[in-house]
Amino acid sequence: MVVVPIELTSSEPIHYDITIGTLPNLKFDRKVAIITNPTVSSLHLEKLLEKIDAPQCEVVTIPDGETFKTLTTVESILTALFEAKFDRKSLLIALGGGVIGDMTGFAASLYQRGIDFIQVPTTLLSQVDASVGGKTGVNTAYGKNLIGAFYQPKAVYIDPYFLSTLPEREFAAGIAEVVKMAVMFDDDFLTYLEMNDLRQEAVIREMIRRSVTLKAMVVNQDEKEAGIRAVLNYGHTFGHVIENETNYATYLHGEAVAIGIVMANALAVELGLLEESEAHRVMNLLQNNGLPTAYVIRDIKHFYEHFFLDKKSNRGKIKFVLPNGALGTHVMRDDIEASTVKAVLQRFGGGV
Amino acid sequence: MVVVPIELTSSEPIHYDITIGTLPNLKFDRKVAIITNPTVSSLHLEKLLEKIDAPQCEVVTIPDGETFKTLTTVESILTALFEAKFDRKSLLIALGGGVIGDMTGFAASLYQRGIDFIQVPTTLLSQVDASVGGKTGVNTAYGKNLIGAFYQPKAVYIDPYFLSTLPEREFAAGIAEVVKMAVMFDDDFLTYLEMNDLRQEAVIREMIRRSVTLKAMVVNQDEKEAGIRAVLNYGHTFGHVIENETNYATYLHGEAVAIGIVMANALAVELGLLEESEAHRVMNLLQNNGLPTAYVIRDIKHFYEHFFLDKKSNRGKIKFVLPNGALGTHVMRDDIEASTVKAVLQRFGGGV
Repeated sequence: MVVVPIELTSSEPIHYDITIGTLPNLKFDRKVAIITNPTVSSLHLEKLLEKIDAPQCEVVTIPDGETFKTLTTVESILTALFEAKFDRKSLLIALGGGVIGDMTGFAASLYQRGIDFIQVPTTLLSQVDASVGGKTGVNTAYGKNLIGAFYQPKAVYIDPYFLSTLPEREFAAGIAEVVKMAVMFDDDFLTYLEMNDLRQEAVIREMIRRSVTLKAMVVNQDEKEAGIRAVLNYGHTFGHVIENETNYATYLHGEAVAIGIVMANALAVELGLLEESEAHRVMNLLQNNGLPTAYVIRDIKHFYEHFFLDKKSNRGKIKFVLPNGALGTHVMRDDIEASTVKAVLQRFGGGV
Repeated sequence: MVVVPIELTSSEPIHYDITIGTLPNLKFDRKVAIITNPTVSSLHLEKLLEKIDAPQCEVVTIPDGETFKTLTTVESILTALFEAKFDRKSLLIALGGGVIGDMTGFAASLYQRGIDFIQVPTTLLSQVDASVGGKTGVNTAYGKNLIGAFYQPKAVYIDPYFLSTLPEREFAAGIAEVVKMAVMFDDDFLTYLEMNDLRQEAVIREMIRRSVTLKAMVVNQDEKEAGIRAVLNYGHTFGHVIENETNYATYLHGEAVAIGIVMANALAVELGLLEESEAHRVMNLLQNNGLPTAYVIRDIKHFYEHFFLDKKSNRGKIKFVLPNGALGTHVMRDDIEASTVKAVLQRFGGGV
């Protein structure tokens, strides 16, 4: 028996910058394609085009909305790139929210086994969360983000100006992810969120800066979600089930996460990991910012079974992310009895 | 303007072993799926199953052949995994030739943003080439392997026993890739190939060992094909056009590569990079092993234009890989005049 070892020494360490502020001029010596949707395009494409200097700049417009976050849509992006004879040096720019960013990154990862891409997120949710960290992918009939790749952008440009046209409800949805970061990692940041008007320009910038800095800290330690990055799923274990049960039609992702955070906190209270009063603090913050915190579970058994379809569920165990004794701390638990979880769900008005 | 740097420090260096010899027993504590096709399955599935000890072992059978190397087939693999409730710890095993290996690796890279996979190549071509190095992907209407990922297996098990059932023509096709390695990197190995009967068991083992060792050397230096790995495209620049022009129906991949090697050598002779006699040596070796070395080009302009669809063509330049003064050496050239290339193609019986 002969053994030939493969030792990949050539993989370069990945480095890129997330720039928060007015979108700078962007000069490229290669083909560029902006991937966007009709809604964002009508509001912001012109501004982006003004900033871009490239030998060729294509615009690929895909349908708006989570229901189009599919492999079929990604294929349509790839086809547009083949038609425009893009090569391995070409570049994609995602102009839009999380859906656009996730699919643009995924298309970039697939095209000729990987080309560069840049994120220009236009929603609060994508600015504070989705555009940072290289998770790309699409939904399937079996659940959200179940097909995809870890693929990092070459740069992220976060310009809060884009938020001026964002509907109030979508702005609120972004705040859910901000609250998530604060509850898991930084109680001081949580207090800041409670004490300030989150619609104020200076506060928005500070909120983005602190969220992105926390997320960068996590991603820098654990790109592939082998450990601490799973903490970012706080609120999402429950939220994903809610989104799925309501066919992604009733709630925005951030809204489902807000409800999920309240559910996770209820479980933490039940387990003695959080004071009831602290859970209330978080619920109030979410409510004060226009986020839903209640959800009537029709069938608890069904809701619980749904957890197992989640990517986080490994070898039949569900991993819950919870505050760990206080706000600003976290713990991952895969040893919680089904009966305990179901008892907590029961309180959300569920039947058996 | 605030800049938050992303510095991914967590990415582990990639290491795995390619084991050449009798397939060992394989014990897993997780779900396993073998991806194969009906032809290979009827010949070798039983043997593989005997070696595997796992809590759950699925078999996913996909249609046989290059025409099924599509995103649609990969989706069918992913669907089977979702149906079997595979999680992030589950494992895929590719049992088959290059097509099976490329699609299994690609499916593994996509499933929940990446799960482990193992290669058990059953053809000479996949044993000496395709199973080593982590190139995965599928064909599109625009060309071969245009969608995919760089995604390394956890292990490769090369058992020459599988070759006992391989059709003669497919065995020959594998030799084309062996000759490619020798011509590019190792003249001594080329002499070995000329001096020995490549159907002898001990010679087959040695041929696999030396090819894989050379390929590992290249991949270890340059996983993502930023430099030296592109040398492995020797013969392929021409071969891919031949395959495409003949709708992947006339030639096996290795056969097209054999013709491509002869064409590349003719270009090298034209440029003064190779003695005519050395080009003949290689042609004889290919012919002696049952490989085609002639191809009538119907339309040279069309053939030449086709180069630009290749992944290797960057910013409108075609990169030719050629021997560099002698066999066992290589050079990449993107400065060759179209007229020079066309003059060489003309000699292959082409019209204008």
